Amino acid sequence: MEKIPILRMGDLLLVTIQVDLYDRLAETLESDLVLMIKKTGAQGVLIDISAVSIIDSFMGRIIGNIATMSKIMDAETVVVGMQPAVAITLVELGLPLNGVLSALNVERGMELLKGKIALKGASFEDDEDGYPE
Amino acid sequence: MEKIPILRMGDLLLVTIQVDLYDRLAETLESDLVLMIKKTGAQGVLIDISAVSIIDSFMGRIIGNIATMSKIMDAETVVVGMQPAVAITLVELGLPLNGVLSALNVERGMELLKGKIALKGASFEDDEDGYPE
Repeated sequence: MEKIPILRMGDLLLVTIQVDLYDRLAETLESDLVLMIKKTGAQGVLIDISAVSIIDSFMGRIIGNIATMSKIMDAETVVVGMQPAVAITLVELGLPLNGVLSALNVERGMELLKGKIALKGASFEDDEDGYPE
Repeated sequence: MEKIPILRMGDLLLVTIQVDLYDRLAETLESDLVLMIKKTGAQGVLIDISAVSIIDSFMGRIIGNIATMSKIMDAETVVVGMQPAVAITLVELGLPLNGVLSALNVERGMELLKGKIALKGASFEDDEDGYPE
């Protein structure tokens, strides 16, 4: 199985990482995800890493890349379900995932993203020309 | 990574199958899932198999087992995201997944389950003693 599935749930996309990412799989995931954001108009991406027990700098970088790409496509990224050991490793590796939001589990991640989306909608409405300052 | 994560989303649980199931992994999934149903009181289970491109009689049987176990624990199972080739293979193998509901994608599966749950709630309310006939 050579693809990580991206599930659409309303305004959000959910990616569950269960296998070790290698170069080509990560590349496929990145390109699938930006295409999916374009196709669905999704405003948020949830990356579930609850099955990831070992993280290395490569995977840290891929998550950072995904968040940056999604941001450019106007979608927020939230990493959910991180195991405590993984959080420790990330900080020890000097990869604190700057610019990536995180939440304890999928439910909290969805709430966080829905709050962000609602806030964005509100700031658009305040603005007369429809564009943020 | 030796576990398939089970994500809780409100009343529902979501399992995404991305790797080939072998004996022990399937067993772990089954026991994790029934424990999770008990712990969360979930009323529905979504099994996403959009990443599964080849299905064999073993995996067909595991999906059937999960559905039966969930049913006993009072939760409905819906298989979502099946690839057309997999549907053809299942029928050719003589495994039409009897008793397992299916839906085209996660969103439709969630709608189906929510409908089922609402219906179950309603039939409980109709009943004076709170138990179905």
